[in-house]
Amino acid sequence: MQLTNAEWTETEEDIARKAFETAYKREISDLIDSVKHKAISLVEMEDMWNLHDFLSAKRHEVDGKYDYRLPMLVFVFAGLVKDGWLSLNELEGLTSDKIAKISALARM
Amino acid sequence: MQLTNAEWTETEEDIARKAFETAYKREISDLIDSVKHKAISLVEMEDMWNLHDFLSAKRHEVDGKYDYRLPMLVFVFAGLVKDGWLSLNELEGLTSDKIAKISALARM
Repeated sequence: MQLTNAEWTETEEDIARKAFETAYKREISDLIDSVKHKAISLVEMEDMWNLHDFLSAKRHEVDGKYDYRLPMLVFVFAGLVKDGWLSLNELEGLTSDKIAKISALARM
Repeated sequence: MQLTNAEWTETEEDIARKAFETAYKREISDLIDSVKHKAISLVEMEDMWNLHDFLSAKRHEVDGKYDYRLPMLVFVFAGLVKDGWLSLNELEGLTSDKIAKISALARM
């Protein structure tokens, strides 16, 4: 299936932007909760460096994952659906073709 | 003054090791408190990446600073005294020559 050259209408772009931001806010909020939880349990230096490693990994992951370029969005949304940050019904309004691709990729 | 070729008796080494560990524990404990405090106030992503930057800097600083090699100890202790992690009287038992050097370097 062709994945990267799909056309996006203005309405679809609005839906995509909103879904993208929703997932991003959810993941960051969850991450903040995790960091707070880990911070409460800090006892020794090693715990602190573990927290540092965790933040390094998450920063890298988040920076790489939230790539808002139209040709990449199908992949981005598939990953977000797969990881539970977005549900397919939040993408309602995109063409059924795109939804089908996102859904298929999310199950891989 | 000659700084790096001083002799260390076994007693002095014991004192040095204890002082080194005391300062280290103090600094790490203070750092853990800072991280907990910063974590409580996390609201958005930027705060989290600021915490990550803070931890990166501190890890680098702490790793570099606590260098337990006898020829380096005069410098290490001077830095710890200067930054308030150790007081000169916790080094009591070292030769007056070493104390004088540490004290002079700490005031620089």
